[in-house]
Amino acid sequence: MPLVPRSRLIVALDLMDGYEALSIAEKLGGIADAIKVNYPLILSAGLDIIKDLKKHGNVVADFKVADIPNTNSLICAQAFKAGADAIICHGFAGSDSVKACIDEASKYGCEAYVVTEMSHPGAVEFLQPHAFELVELARRAGASGIIAPATRPERLADIRRKAGKMKILAPGVGAQGGEARRAIDAGADFIIVGRGIYGADDPYEAALEFIEQLRR
Amino acid sequence: MPLVPRSRLIVALDLMDGYEALSIAEKLGGIADAIKVNYPLILSAGLDIIKDLKKHGNVVADFKVADIPNTNSLICAQAFKAGADAIICHGFAGSDSVKACIDEASKYGCEAYVVTEMSHPGAVEFLQPHAFELVELARRAGASGIIAPATRPERLADIRRKAGKMKILAPGVGAQGGEARRAIDAGADFIIVGRGIYGADDPYEAALEFIEQLRR
Repeated sequence: MPLVPRSRLIVALDLMDGYEALSIAEKLGGIADAIKVNYPLILSAGLDIIKDLKKHGNVVADFKVADIPNTNSLICAQAFKAGADAIICHGFAGSDSVKACIDEASKYGCEAYVVTEMSHPGAVEFLQPHAFELVELARRAGASGIIAPATRPERLADIRRKAGKMKILAPGVGAQGGEARRAIDAGADFIIVGRGIYGADDPYEAALEFIEQLRR
Repeated sequence: MPLVPRSRLIVALDLMDGYEALSIAEKLGGIADAIKVNYPLILSAGLDIIKDLKKHGNVVADFKVADIPNTNSLICAQAFKAGADAIICHGFAGSDSVKACIDEASKYGCEAYVVTEMSHPGAVEFLQPHAFELVELARRAGASGIIAPATRPERLADIRRKAGKMKILAPGVGAQGGEARRAIDAGADFIIVGRGIYGADDPYEAALEFIEQLRR
């Protein structure tokens, strides 16, 4: 199912233990718009964990897909067959590689999101100088949205202006230093929070606090 | 174990079926210097297939790792724990992301290889203009080697001149149009062949033919 901004919160379950991930997803009780999973969890728990997580809401497979088109198609097909609602791919591997992900997403009624810039320091070396071109690539290829960093709200605002109707998912909120409200004000449709929620004593309460910040 | 060029052949088992992959690895009988696995196989067969493939030679985990440093470390750690001898990461995500992979490889006595350019058409858009910078990034970070395309031998030769002592793995030989001998002449230490071997009626004979081309 396509992502629809209600709470505007996506929870990144950056964990290695499948049971822990499922337990937190259950505690969240559908309060977030989606759960984001990454390879560390998939490699340890297996791809089928997506099926279980799906019971608690939409699942975004943050696989940062960045291979040749044929391999990208195969990776995406497996993620969607396992139940993922959306996949995250890199734009810098080129428009044919991105198109392969988007085409595969279309077949399953799912979505593909393209990374334009990331939240870590090294992202300024090669990604940031090309961020606008990657936004344009994503738009032309027909991506549902893009990924842009909550840690750099001024960049996020610039990217928002170029992104047209594409949805923006902004990682880096909380432990990485990004502020939820500022990211939304800068134009993000969703913020992605990891440790700040899964690492909290009460993940539900922590999620609720983020959602309240977003409503203010 | 670090990759040592003997046959100079790496076989890419770009398959989705674990039993088929194992059967081909067995047929190859250690004739190749390594077997390369990618996510489509890992997602369908599970990470543990690396342990089984390892009985037939070195295993390169071609995960094109391209995330934030912490996530990269976690992905690499799992690949090495499962028995991978080397990991392939992207340079584009920045030097801190690459360093995370190299540091994790060191802990396990394993290797990290950095993608500088790829063999598909879209690689000319963002990767190719930065290929030399990515070679330099890999060298400074202490990578064991880099990935450069057999499909563009003139580029491979340029990259060889910048790569110093780093090993070069060249994908795209066979079905994608690259020629084995030309890639080695241009400076590759290993060529990577997929379909041309796993898709052959007799994978062992096909591998032997490639190895003979490399010796000529």
